Amino acid sequence: METKRIEALADGVFAIAMTLLVIELHVPVLAAGEGGADLLHKLREMVPHILAYAVSFLVIGTFWIGHHFQYAHIRRVDRTFLWINVVFLLAIAFLPFATALIGEHWQYPAASMVYGGTLLVAGTALYAHWAYAAGGRRLTAADLSPEVDRRVRHRVMAGWAVYAAATLLAPASTTLALLIFALMPVVYMLPWGVDRHLKT
Amino acid sequence: METKRIEALADGVFAIAMTLLVIELHVPVLAAGEGGADLLHKLREMVPHILAYAVSFLVIGTFWIGHHFQYAHIRRVDRTFLWINVVFLLAIAFLPFATALIGEHWQYPAASMVYGGTLLVAGTALYAHWAYAAGGRRLTAADLSPEVDRRVRHRVMAGWAVYAAATLLAPASTTLALLIFALMPVVYMLPWGVDRHLKT
Amino acid sequence: METKRIEALADGVFAIAMTLLVIELHVPVLAAGEGGADLLHKLREMVPHILAYAVSFLVIGTFWIGHHFQYAHIRRVDRTFLWINVVFLLAIAFLPFATALIGEHWQYPAASMVYGGTLLVAGTALYAHWAYAAGGRRLTAADLSPEVDRRVRHRVMAGWAVYAAATLLAPASTTLALLIFALMPVVYMLPWGVDRHLKT
Amino acid sequence: METKRIEALADGVFAIAMTLLVIELHVPVLAAGEGGADLLHKLREMVPHILAYAVSFLVIGTFWIGHHFQYAHIRRVDRTFLWINVVFLLAIAFLPFATALIGEHWQYPAASMVYGGTLLVAGTALYAHWAYAAGGRRLTAADLSPEVDRRVRHRVMAGWAVYAAATLLAPASTTLALLIFALMPVVYMLPWGVDRHLKT
Repeated sequence: METKRIEALADGVFAIAMTLLVIELHVPVLAAGEGGADLLHKLREMVPHILAYAVSFLVIGTFWIGHHFQYAHIRRVDRTFLWINVVFLLAIAFLPFATALIGEHWQYPAASMVYGGTLLVAGTALYAHWAYAAGGRRLTAADLSPEVDRRVRHRVMAGWAVYAAATLLAPASTTLALLIFALMPVVYMLPWGVDRHLKT
Repeated sequence: METKRIEALADGVFAIAMTLLVIELHVPVLAAGEGGADLLHKLREMVPHILAYAVSFLVIGTFWIGHHFQYAHIRRVDRTFLWINVVFLLAIAFLPFATALIGEHWQYPAASMVYGGTLLVAGTALYAHWAYAAGGRRLTAADLSPEVDRRVRHRVMAGWAVYAAATLLAPASTTLALLIFALMPVVYMLPWGVDRHLKT
Repeated sequence: METKRIEALADGVFAIAMTLLVIELHVPVLAAGEGGADLLHKLREMVPHILAYAVSFLVIGTFWIGHHFQYAHIRRVDRTFLWINVVFLLAIAFLPFATALIGEHWQYPAASMVYGGTLLVAGTALYAHWAYAAGGRRLTAADLSPEVDRRVRHRVMAGWAVYAAATLLAPASTTLALLIFALMPVVYMLPWGVDRHLKT
Repeated sequence: METKRIEALADGVFAIAMTLLVIELHVPVLAAGEGGADLLHKLREMVPHILAYAVSFLVIGTFWIGHHFQYAHIRRVDRTFLWINVVFLLAIAFLPFATALIGEHWQYPAASMVYGGTLLVAGTALYAHWAYAAGGRRLTAADLSPEVDRRVRHRVMAGWAVYAAATLLAPASTTLALLIFALMPVVYMLPWGVDRHLKT
C-alpha cells in the first residue's frame, strides 16, 4: 500500500485549510456618506485579523513541512496509519475556525486556549504519526538511522511543548500566548532553529 | 485509461468536503457588555456543532479509506465507472450540508434522516463502484481473489445496513440514530472492527 | 513540458467547483415556536436548490469527463494551451455562482441565460482546447486517428449546440431551458448517448 | 527531496484561490414585488464584481504559469525553499480577499493599493523562489543556461515593476491602476508578450 494517496489527501486538506483562512476576512462595508478615509480606517481595524491570517498560514506551513519531511522516510501505509492521518487532518482542518476565533476575540484567553488546544491535538497526532511509522521501523526503511528518528521526534515535541506552554499561560497573559503562537513559525523557519538538521 | 485522475478528483472532493465542514462553525459574536465568561459559555453551546464536525470528518474518513482500498485492486477505468464515481462524490460533497443540518437541528428526526439518507446514497454508490469494477473482473486484475472480493463487499454492506437502520430508527429515537452515526467510524477504526482483514 | 501539472490544477478546480456548490445550500432556520414539522416543510422548499445542486454536479462531471478523455491523447503542453485551460477553468469555477442563481431565481429567464452562457463559454474553451492540441497534431501523438479527432469534436459540439438552444429558448420558456440543462448529463451518461464511442 | 509535493500543495492553493474568488459573488435578492426586470438590473450592477472575478482569475493564472515554468528547471527542494513557497502561497491565498475588496470598493485607492500590494508580495516571493533555486544552481540542473535564468528573472521583474507602478499610481488615478491590473494578464497572454521566449 503506497503513500501516494494519503499524501494527496493531506496536501488537499492543507491547501484548503490554508486558503479557507482568508474566508474569515470580510470586506468592510461603508455606510451611506462614508468614503475613502473610512475605508482606510476600517482596513486598519482589520489588521489583527490579517495578522491572525498570516500567522496561521505560517503555522499550518510548519505542520505541512513537518508532515512532508516524515514522508521522506515513510515507505508504506496501513489502516491504523491512515486513521492517525485522518485525526491529524481533522485538527488541521479545524484551524480556520480557531484562527477566526482568535482574530475576533484575541483579548480573551478562551480564544487562545481553543487555538492552542487545536495545535496540541495536531502535534500529538503528528507525533503518533511518526512514532507508529518508525517504531520497529514498521512503515519506514529498515535501516532508518536512529539519528533521523531522534531528530524528527525532537522537532515535533519541541513544538508541542511550546504550544502547551502558550495554552497554559493564556489565562494569565493572552498577549504572551499570542506572541508565542506568532513566533513559533519563525523559530522553525530560521536556519539555526529546530529544523537546522533537516538541511542535511 | 488509468485510475490516476479519477483518484485525484476524488481526493480533491474528499479533502474539500472534509475541510468545508468547518465553514459551518461560526465564531460566536459578543454583544456590547459581554466578556470572556460569555465567550466561554457560547463556545460551550457550540459543542454539538463541533461534535457533528468531528464525527462527520471521521465518517468521510471512513468512506475515503474504503474508496482508497478499492483502488488497491482497480487497474483501469471506463466511462460508466467514472459516472459511478461522480455520483458517489456528489453524495460525499453533500455531507457538509447534512452535517450542518444535524449540528443545528439534531433534535429533529428530519436532520438525521437527511444525514443518513446521504450516507445511504454514498454507500450504494460505493457498492456499485466495487460491484461494477470487480464483476467479471471488469476493471481489476483477472486474478483478484474471491476472498478479497467478498471482504470489500462485506465492508461496504455492513456500513450500509447500519446507516439504513439508523435512518429508519430516527423518527422513533433521534438520540439512538445520532449515537449510531457517531459510533460507526469507531467500529471501522478499531483493530477488531469490520476492517480487520484489510491489515493483511 | 508535461501535462501532469495542468491536469492537477484542473482536477483541483473541478473538485472545488463541485464541492462549493453545496455552500449555497443554507440550513433552514427555525423561528421560536417552530418544530419538526416546520423543518420538514422548509427542507421540502429547498428541493429546487438541491436539484440545482445535483444537476450542476453532474454537469460539471460531464465537463470533467470530457476534459479527462482529451488528455488520453494529449502528450504535452505549451503556453497558449495553458491559457486556454485557464479560461476554461474560469468558466467552470463560475458555475457555483450560476447554480446558486438558478436555485434562487429559477423562474426568471435571466438565471437560465447566465447559467447557459457560462456553459457556452466552458464549451467553447473546451472545443478550443482540443482544436488547438489536435490541429496539425500540435500537442498529441502524431498518429492520432482522424476518427478519434472527429468524435472528440462531435462530443463537445453536441453539448455546445444543445446548451446554446437552451439559452436562446430561456426567454420563451424557462421550464424548457431548465429541463434541457437537467437532461443533458443523462444524455452523456447513457450508454447509447453521445459518448458511446468512448467505450472503445 | 523531490519537488512533487510542494507542486501538489501549490496546485491545491492555486486551484482553491481561483475558485474561492466566486464565493464573493452573491446571488441578488429580490424584494417582494420585484421580478425579472429587477433581477436583470441587479445582475448588471454586479458587472464590476464579475469583471474583478475574471481579471483576478487570469492574474492568478499568470502566477500559476510563472510558478509552473520555474519547476521545469527546478530539480529538488530544501527547507528554505519550502518556506519561500509558503510565503508565496500566503500572498496567492490572500487574493480572493483583495479581489472582493476591489469588487466592492473599486473607486477608492485603498482597494487598489491592497490588491497591488498583495501582487507585489507574491511577485517578490516568486522572484526569491527563482533566485534561491537558480543562484549557484542550488536546486536546478548544474547546466541551466544563463539565457533561461535571465528570461525567468525578466518575466517576474516585468510584472513586479508594472504592479508597483499601478500601486503607486492608485492614489492619483484609481481608474489607471485598475486598467493596468486588467491588462497585465493580456500582456502575459499575448504571443508577443513578455512570455514569448517560453515557447522555445
